Amino acid sequence: MPSPTIRRLDVASPVPADIDIANSVEPLPIADIAAELGLRPEHYDLYGKYKAKVLLSVLDELKAQQDGYYVVVGGITPTPLGEGKSTTTVGLCQALGAFLDKKVVTCLRQPSQGPTFGIKGGAAGGGYSQVIPMDEFNLHLTGDIHAITAANNLLAAAIDTRIFHENSQSDKALFNRLCPANKEGKRHFADIMFRRLTKLGVSKTDPNELTPDEIRRFARLDIDPESITWRRVMDVNDRFLRKITVGQGPEEKGMVRETGFDISVASEIMAVLALTTSLADMRERLGRMVIGNSKSGEPITADDLGVGGALTVLMKDAIHPTLMQTLEGTPVLVHAGPFANIAHGNSSIVADKIALKLVGKGGFVVTEAGFGADIGTEKFMDIKCRYSGLVPQCAIIVATIRALKMHGGGPEVVAGKPLDHAYVSENVALVEAGCINLAKHISNTRSYGVNVVVAINKFASDTEAEMKAVHSAAMAAGAFDAVVCTHHAHGGKGAVELGLAVQRACESQAEPLKFLYPLESSIKEKIESIAKFYGASGVEYSEQAEKQIEMYTKQGFSSLPICMAKTQYSFSHVPSMKGAPTGFVLPIRDVRASIGAGFIYPLVGTMSTMPGLPTRPCFYQIDVDTATGKVMGLS
Amino acid sequence: MPSPTIRRLDVASPVPADIDIANSVEPLPIADIAAELGLRPEHYDLYGKYKAKVLLSVLDELKAQQDGYYVVVGGITPTPLGEGKSTTTVGLCQALGAFLDKKVVTCLRQPSQGPTFGIKGGAAGGGYSQVIPMDEFNLHLTGDIHAITAANNLLAAAIDTRIFHENSQSDKALFNRLCPANKEGKRHFADIMFRRLTKLGVSKTDPNELTPDEIRRFARLDIDPESITWRRVMDVNDRFLRKITVGQGPEEKGMVRETGFDISVASEIMAVLALTTSLADMRERLGRMVIGNSKSGEPITADDLGVGGALTVLMKDAIHPTLMQTLEGTPVLVHAGPFANIAHGNSSIVADKIALKLVGKGGFVVTEAGFGADIGTEKFMDIKCRYSGLVPQCAIIVATIRALKMHGGGPEVVAGKPLDHAYVSENVALVEAGCINLAKHISNTRSYGVNVVVAINKFASDTEAEMKAVHSAAMAAGAFDAVVCTHHAHGGKGAVELGLAVQRACESQAEPLKFLYPLESSIKEKIESIAKFYGASGVEYSEQAEKQIEMYTKQGFSSLPICMAKTQYSFSHVPSMKGAPTGFVLPIRDVRASIGAGFIYPLVGTMSTMPGLPTRPCFYQIDVDTATGKVMGLS
Repeated sequence: MPSPTIRRLDVASPVPADIDIANSVEPLPIADIAAELGLRPEHYDLYGKYKAKVLLSVLDELKAQQDGYYVVVGGITPTPLGEGKSTTTVGLCQALGAFLDKKVVTCLRQPSQGPTFGIKGGAAGGGYSQVIPMDEFNLHLTGDIHAITAANNLLAAAIDTRIFHENSQSDKALFNRLCPANKEGKRHFADIMFRRLTKLGVSKTDPNELTPDEIRRFARLDIDPESITWRRVMDVNDRFLRKITVGQGPEEKGMVRETGFDISVASEIMAVLALTTSLADMRERLGRMVIGNSKSGEPITADDLGVGGALTVLMKDAIHPTLMQTLEGTPVLVHAGPFANIAHGNSSIVADKIALKLVGKGGFVVTEAGFGADIGTEKFMDIKCRYSGLVPQCAIIVATIRALKMHGGGPEVVAGKPLDHAYVSENVALVEAGCINLAKHISNTRSYGVNVVVAINKFASDTEAEMKAVHSAAMAAGAFDAVVCTHHAHGGKGAVELGLAVQRACESQAEPLKFLYPLESSIKEKIESIAKFYGASGVEYSEQAEKQIEMYTKQGFSSLPICMAKTQYSFSHVPSMKGAPTGFVLPIRDVRASIGAGFIYPLVGTMSTMPGLPTRPCFYQIDVDTATGKVMGLS
Repeated sequence: MPSPTIRRLDVASPVPADIDIANSVEPLPIADIAAELGLRPEHYDLYGKYKAKVLLSVLDELKAQQDGYYVVVGGITPTPLGEGKSTTTVGLCQALGAFLDKKVVTCLRQPSQGPTFGIKGGAAGGGYSQVIPMDEFNLHLTGDIHAITAANNLLAAAIDTRIFHENSQSDKALFNRLCPANKEGKRHFADIMFRRLTKLGVSKTDPNELTPDEIRRFARLDIDPESITWRRVMDVNDRFLRKITVGQGPEEKGMVRETGFDISVASEIMAVLALTTSLADMRERLGRMVIGNSKSGEPITADDLGVGGALTVLMKDAIHPTLMQTLEGTPVLVHAGPFANIAHGNSSIVADKIALKLVGKGGFVVTEAGFGADIGTEKFMDIKCRYSGLVPQCAIIVATIRALKMHGGGPEVVAGKPLDHAYVSENVALVEAGCINLAKHISNTRSYGVNVVVAINKFASDTEAEMKAVHSAAMAAGAFDAVVCTHHAHGGKGAVELGLAVQRACESQAEPLKFLYPLESSIKEKIESIAKFYGASGVEYSEQAEKQIEMYTKQGFSSLPICMAKTQYSFSHVPSMKGAPTGFVLPIRDVRASIGAGFIYPLVGTMSTMPGLPTRPCFYQIDVDTATGKVMGLS
C-alpha cells in the first residue's frame, strides 16, 4: 500500500520550468513525512513547516535495526551541461517510494548559496523530479553552511591574531595571558590546553611547574606565515576576494599577509561535516585540522590555537541532517556539500547512516556522488565508505545520449550555446563510439565488487536505436542492467523500470567491497593506483609535489586516503581528452591535505575555489512577491 | 491568576555564574509560550524546541487589537562594566509577568556572535534575569545575522564585479549582456531594471528603442571606486580584515582596491531590518541603499546594480522576530541588533509592533535602547518612533551607585581591574555629586513628553543612604519615580516595585510625543539640536564633514533623521568628561549616511566597527560536552 504522504503528479507536456513545477505543488508538513518514517517529535527539530533536522541521537535508538539497501549514483564523464545525476537520484526515489511501495530516503548534498545568484541557478533536481520547497533548498536551508562559514573564519581570525600577539610579547607575558593567575594567585590550564601539552610530551597539570623551555614551547606556536594553508571563506561568488592582502590597518602594525577567500563549501570544515560519524568524532576532527606549520616544521592544529571546542559549538546543530521531501512526497535528507575536486564531493555519512536505519531491511537509500564516477564514485568508495564502514549493494551510472555522442567524437558542447545538430538527431555510430567512456566507468565501478546499473537519462530527441546501442555496450562492459528512464518528464513513473533494476541488483549483490588501494601504501603508491584506474600510464610529480609528499610523510599523515583534485571533464587531466584516453602521464602539480577531514589531495591542474559573477547575474530576476512572500525568479 | 507558563525560581546566594543559572532551568517548549500569548501554530515557525519565528502576518490579523503600554529602557552614562540595562529589562518583565499578572513581552536586540568568542561573552541578561537557552541566544539564533552577512556581501561582490565588467566592455556589449536577445531575437528588461530606467527618466519599455545615450546611461553605472562606502562584513572578531586590498588575483587584471570588513551587525542591512515596518517596505529600503557615487556624483543604489530583489529574498525569513523566554517563563522577542553608534542601537520596530498587539490593552512591552539615554533613548525617540509611529508611555533610566560615583569624581573604572575602594564602601557625597549625570538624562528624556522612572540597579555593597540620595536627586530632576531593584539577585521578585512604578507611570501618561527636531530642518540644524541636547555650546565641522553635508543635501537626503556616532562614555565626545559637561564644542569629523535604513550619521571621533581577539580569547573555555551535546564555558 502506498504511504499516505505520497502525492500523484499531473504531468504536463512540454515540461514547464522547474520553478513553475516546484511552485505548483503544496509541500506536505514535514512532520507528516517524518511520521511516515517512524520518527516521533522528539527525534527531530522543526525549522519552519517544511524542514526538520533529524537528530543524530536517532542512530543510538535504532542501533538494533537492520540497514536497508545502499545505492550510490555516479555518472559518465559529463558535458558542461550536466547529465541529470541529481534529477535521476530524485526520480529513482520517487519511483521506489511512490510507485514500488518501498521505504526509501534520498540523500543529497546541500548546494552552495552563492552560485544561486550567479550563473548556475539552483540544484534541487529538475522537471518532475525535484526537492521542495526549492527556494529553501537553495538558500539558507537550516544554516549549516552559515555555521561552517562562522567556524572557518573564527579559526582564520585566531591564526592571524595569535601570530600578532606572539610577535609583540615575551614567552612569559604570553604564558601569563594564556594562563592568568586568579585572585588567589593560582593559575589553571584550560581543558583544551592539555591537548597541546600532551602533543608536546608535557604531562604536568600545574602551570607553575612548567620550565622556561616548556613555557616557550607551550605558549609560542611560532607559526610560519608562509606555511599557512587556512583561508577565509564566504558563501558568495566574490572573485575579488580570491587574492587579498590583510592586516593593512594601522593597529595591525604592518603585519600584512597575502591570503584569500574560498567559497564556503570549499572549507575543510564542510569535508569534516561530510565525513564525521558522531559529535565526539567531529570534535576530534575539528581539533586536529592543520592550518600550517611552525617555523620548525611541526603541523599546527586548531586545538593548538585553543579553538577546537568553539568550532564544535558553532557546528553542533549543523551535524544533524535536514529532512525535506520530493515532489511526490518521498523523504529526502540534505546534508553537507563538500567540493568534488579539492574534497570528496559526497553528502554526509551521518545522513546515510540515519537513512539506512530509517528505511530498514528491504528499504532503499539512494545517495549521489559528485562529478563523474571516476571522481565521485571512486571517492565514495575509497574515502566515504572507508570512514563509514558502509557497503553499497548497487552503483548507478547515469548516461545521456548527448554525452556519449560527445565522447564518440561529436563537436564541443558549450554551456549557453545551442547544441550542434549531431546532438539532436539520430547518430548511432557516434553513440557507439562514445560508449567507450561508459564502458570504462562500468568496469572501474565493477572493480569495487558492486553491481552496476546504467540509467539512460532520456531526452526528447534520443532514438530507440541509440538507446539500444547504449544497452548493448553497457551489458558487454559488465553492467548488471541498463535501463531507459524519463523521470524528468514523468516523475517517479518514468523511473519505475530503473527502480526494479536497482532492486534486483541490490537483492543479488554478493561480493564484498574491494577498495582500490590499502591505506598502508605510501602516498605515491596510492596516487599511482588511482592514476592507473583513470587509464594513465604513469604519474609525474612537480618539485613542489615531491616536497609536500615528503613533508606529509614525515609528519605522519601518509596513511590517509587520497582525494584527487582533477577535472571531471575527462578521465585524464586534459578536459578535451574525451572517451577513455590511455597512455597519458598524470601530472601532480601540488599536494595538499585536509588532516581533520582525513585525506591528502593532490592537485592535477588548477582548481578554482571561488566563482565569480557574470555581467548579468541571475539575481536580476530574483525578487520577493511582497504580497504573498513567495520567491520569484529562482531557477 | 498567573499564566501557566510562569516558573518560580529558587534563588541562591551568592548568585551563581550566569551559565550555571541558565543551565539549571529547563526551558518550556516555546509552543507553550506562544500559546500563552494567544498565538496559534500557523502564526509562527518553530526553529527547534525553544525558538520560534513569529510571522509578520500576525500584525494584519491583530490590526483591530489595541496596543499595550510601550516602555523603553535607557541608562545613565555607563562605566566600562555596563550598568545592567539588559538585565533590568528582563527583570522588569519577569516582575510584570510572573508577579504582577500582566501580559508582557520583552523586546531585545540579537547580540553579535563574534564577540562571544572574544572578550565580552554573551548578552542574554545576567543572574536571575536572563533569556534562555542562553547558548542559542548568543550563537546562531535563527540565522538572521547570517542572512545579513550573506546579503551584505552579495551586494559587495556585485559592486566590484560590475566595475570590472564595465571596465572591459563597450556600452553596447554591456547592454547586450544585461538585456540579452532571446531565441526570437527579442530583448526584455528585467522588472528590476525599470527602477533604474525610472530614475534616469526613461519611460520606454522596449530595450530596442533606447538611444545610444540612454543605453550608455542605463548600462554604465560608472561607479567611482574612491566613493564606495559599502564594505564587506563578517560576524567574527577579525581585526586583520579591518583594512585589506582586494582584487590581487591574476584574473582580476590589476583592478585592486583598498577596502575592509566590519562586523556583521554594523551592516546597513541590520539597520534596515531594525527600522523596516513590512516586507514591502524592506524591499524598498534594501533597493535604495546607496553604495557610493557615479563619477558624476549621482548616488548608486542596490537597485541600480539589479540586486535589491535578491537581497530581499535573502532577508525574507529574517524579517520575522524570534520568540524566546526568560528564566521565569515570560515571552521575549529577539530581533535585530544594529550598532548603537554608527546605527541607532535599538531592536526592531516589527517586533515591538507585534508585541504591542500581543499584549493588548493594559499589557506591557519593554524594549531596550543601546548605550546611555543620550544616545539610545534619543535615537529611540527621534529615529525609531518617528519611523514606527509608536508612542512610549514610560522611559526607564537605569542607574547604579557605581556609575554615579564615577560621575561624582570617583577614580577611573577599568574593565578587568579590581574596583577602587570608593566603589565598594559608602560614599554618599560622591553619589550626590554624580547625580548630575542622572539628572541631565532625566530632563533630556522628560523633554520628549514621557514619564521617566529611574531604576536603581542595586549591588551588594550599595547602602541605604546612597540609594536615598539617588531617589531625592531623581525626583528633584523631574522623575515620575525612582525605585531600587534587585532582579539580578532575585529575578522578577526583585523588580516588583519597579514594575508597579512603571505601571503607574504608564497609566498617568498624558502628553504627546515631542521630537527633538523636525525632519525638515537642515542637516546642520539637526546636528546642532542634538549637540545642544548633549550640553555642547556649539558644533565644529571638519572640511570633510562640510563636503559630505553639502553632497547629501544636493542628493536630496537632507530630510532624514540624524544618528550621532558618539562615545557612550560621556555626554560629550571626550570619554573622560564625566557628569554633565557643558560648554564643549562637538567636533564632527565626517558625515556618512545609511540611505536605505534612513538616517545620516555624523562621526564624532573614530568608531571601531571590527573588534579583535585578545591573547587568550573566551574560546579557550568553550566546548561541547559530546556525551550530552550541552555547550560548556559560555559566559
